[in-house]
Amino acid sequence: MNIEIINIGDELLIGQVVNTNASWMGEQLSLAGFSVNQFTIIGDTREHILDALWKASERCEVVLISGGIGPTRDDITKTTLCDFFGTRLVFNEEAYKDVEAIFARRGYQVTELNRQQAYLPEDCISIPNKLGTARGMWFEKSCPSRILHPASCIQEARSRMQDPGSGMHQVIYVSMPGVPFEMKAMMNEYIIPELKTRFHPKSIYHKTILTQGIGESFLASMIEEWENNLPSFIKLAYLPQPGMVRLRLSGTGDEENAIRSQVEKEAEKLSVLIPDYIFGADDDQIEAIVGRLLKEKNATLGTAESCTGGYIAHLLTSVPGSSAYYKGSIIAYDNAVKEQMLSIMPETLQEFGAVSSEVVIEMAIGAQTNLNVDYVIAVSGIAGPDGGTEEKPVGTVWIAIATPDEVFSEKYLFGDSRERNIRRASLQALNLLRKNLLTDCG
Amino acid sequence: MNIEIINIGDELLIGQVVNTNASWMGEQLSLAGFSVNQFTIIGDTREHILDALWKASERCEVVLISGGIGPTRDDITKTTLCDFFGTRLVFNEEAYKDVEAIFARRGYQVTELNRQQAYLPEDCISIPNKLGTARGMWFEKSCPSRILHPASCIQEARSRMQDPGSGMHQVIYVSMPGVPFEMKAMMNEYIIPELKTRFHPKSIYHKTILTQGIGESFLASMIEEWENNLPSFIKLAYLPQPGMVRLRLSGTGDEENAIRSQVEKEAEKLSVLIPDYIFGADDDQIEAIVGRLLKEKNATLGTAESCTGGYIAHLLTSVPGSSAYYKGSIIAYDNAVKEQMLSIMPETLQEFGAVSSEVVIEMAIGAQTNLNVDYVIAVSGIAGPDGGTEEKPVGTVWIAIATPDEVFSEKYLFGDSRERNIRRASLQALNLLRKNLLTDCG
Repeated sequence: MNIEIINIGDELLIGQVVNTNASWMGEQLSLAGFSVNQFTIIGDTREHILDALWKASERCEVVLISGGIGPTRDDITKTTLCDFFGTRLVFNEEAYKDVEAIFARRGYQVTELNRQQAYLPEDCISIPNKLGTARGMWFEKSCPSRILHPASCIQEARSRMQDPGSGMHQVIYVSMPGVPFEMKAMMNEYIIPELKTRFHPKSIYHKTILTQGIGESFLASMIEEWENNLPSFIKLAYLPQPGMVRLRLSGTGDEENAIRSQVEKEAEKLSVLIPDYIFGADDDQIEAIVGRLLKEKNATLGTAESCTGGYIAHLLTSVPGSSAYYKGSIIAYDNAVKEQMLSIMPETLQEFGAVSSEVVIEMAIGAQTNLNVDYVIAVSGIAGPDGGTEEKPVGTVWIAIATPDEVFSEKYLFGDSRERNIRRASLQALNLLRKNLLTDCG
Repeated sequence: MNIEIINIGDELLIGQVVNTNASWMGEQLSLAGFSVNQFTIIGDTREHILDALWKASERCEVVLISGGIGPTRDDITKTTLCDFFGTRLVFNEEAYKDVEAIFARRGYQVTELNRQQAYLPEDCISIPNKLGTARGMWFEKSCPSRILHPASCIQEARSRMQDPGSGMHQVIYVSMPGVPFEMKAMMNEYIIPELKTRFHPKSIYHKTILTQGIGESFLASMIEEWENNLPSFIKLAYLPQPGMVRLRLSGTGDEENAIRSQVEKEAEKLSVLIPDYIFGADDDQIEAIVGRLLKEKNATLGTAESCTGGYIAHLLTSVPGSSAYYKGSIIAYDNAVKEQMLSIMPETLQEFGAVSSEVVIEMAIGAQTNLNVDYVIAVSGIAGPDGGTEEKPVGTVWIAIATPDEVFSEKYLFGDSRERNIRRASLQALNLLRKNLLTDCG
């Protein structure tokens, strides 16, 4: 069974909006064990919508459509759907009550534009939308199958004229709003479960292992043997991002529990192979993991940042509730600030330079005292594009961690990009602290 | 003349990669005055590639293809293109020299896989790739025009058999690598200029006005009359983002200079209508504008952040060269840090609470003294989701600006989302400083 996705909206074609709906839908469907064939993105015009609906029907059994419906754009898509399915719009009492309820919650009267949304194609199953006023619409239609070669056109047309049922197959079309959170709720709560019931895709189980501090090719060579020995029903995908590489294991088969336990077993082997680089799984975030470990120890954290310029503080404070353990930071971009606020000795700066083990260690100790915290992350480096020297090129970063028992520092050499250097240094620093918090626990 | 875009790659269909190539291409082409019809996204399979190439040819005159070529994936796309265009791969001396030169720069020997990249279809114009090893390929082909109605199929097929030239039109196909920076360079340096020479699209001139501190609907009502009076050849688009709304003016016509001056005239009117909300145009970034103004005055800046948790510092230090004016920050998440590092009086905190005009003003003054800077941005608020009260709900933010001459504060009420509150407060604070620096200059 193949699925195609059609996204409708002029704003997508002129690049005003990046089409995240399609990739989200593709991901969720493939996670559910379905195979997605094609995305087709078109504008809000009748001719293109009809063309896309016909063409998709030749190639697949399920067509999922998002966009083109909503209070101000209903006209084209909904009437075009009616024409395509040979039906008409009728007033739907239940749909109107939902619209009324949404307006009542917001304290408004229903507008005429929104009243129109309760008109739905007669021959569809309408899908409730808890989060908005545009309902989903589920259609089924018998469509001509694909004519594989232009040369068969005449012969095919003749046989279809003689027997209208020949060369036909059943296609499901589902139209959804383009507003991402409305579409996502409808997909998760209704459409994917319904497709699973109808088509029984093979069970699929995914586990994503999150690694930090090692590049894709080095990682690949470290786990080559393990990868080569993976059972054939488990696939591995490398998903690199600046500062981390995600490894996704996907197991497919008939028995859900068996697959799950096999995938978990392989993930377990991986965690023995590269324990130093794995910081979590699936949706874990390193800044939240560090927070959890600190909370468990009832410990507090502060930061002292130079080249990362507040990005570590920003990551840590993006986590709701972080004020329970995160006390603050001194961002010492300037050497005078390093001396004044972090109590760094002018001699240390002069002798070793701001980007040195000595300075980053004094930064950590200074922050520990001045912010009165248990743990400190301190970073000093050259983010670029300027400021590099032969001895300390752009991308050179020193990171120090101060704990209640010790202070230590490590040196890294990242790349040329300022943005990536800031991100890589920040993730590396958080991972260093995470590892220390874990050892400390054990 | 219509253009369609085909993106090839399994990773797009399963949502591993969000398709930013299509939206970038759509935007650049529409900025150049072309009209884009459809994006088609397909996997790396011969059957789908052929189907997409045929279908697109029925609807348009130019098909731009990205993805599916490169050292490890060349096989399918390139041989499929050869079949579609009825040609074969031949070794291209010039292309090989380019590959060699790229490898020499990186200090490697050319691998066999990369040597294969110098084999190109015989009947294409190959396009140099300065940034990678996969060349672009420009094909032209006479294709059957679209049969508009299935009923015409027999008749159309007959007449085409009698006269092979009837019902045909010329289609340009360009295949490019999927690596975004390689594709972008090829589009900008070769493909868009060449398409302009061939098709002479109408001149189009865009100007994007950047506003901050006002929501889309309020903005719309403030500029309604101006918008209604826009000449018909100038279109306006609202492009909202968290914390800012961009207004894009697009003028289309025959005479480039006339359009440019009309669009600039309308932008000028806008800057008189809403001077307080406009902070820049086109690719301006507020953190870079603030930096430029500070440099002009030879002045220094520091920050004192509570609820924004380092995000303002991060924005400021994302700008290369910011160390010339930005000295550092104290991120005082904890009240003890506010007292210790920002010299806030315990009585002020106790009497007014951390989220108050009094505290944020003391934060600004404390940072000005302790960081020894001319200007300070200080922020204290409740980012959420917890910590709100009836009197000070989530989203309440106080911002203070300290200058060499004065200190002032303003109160804002943003929304419920922690992430957006952090972003909106940060942009608002930077804009407050920007306005002060400008008044000060005048």
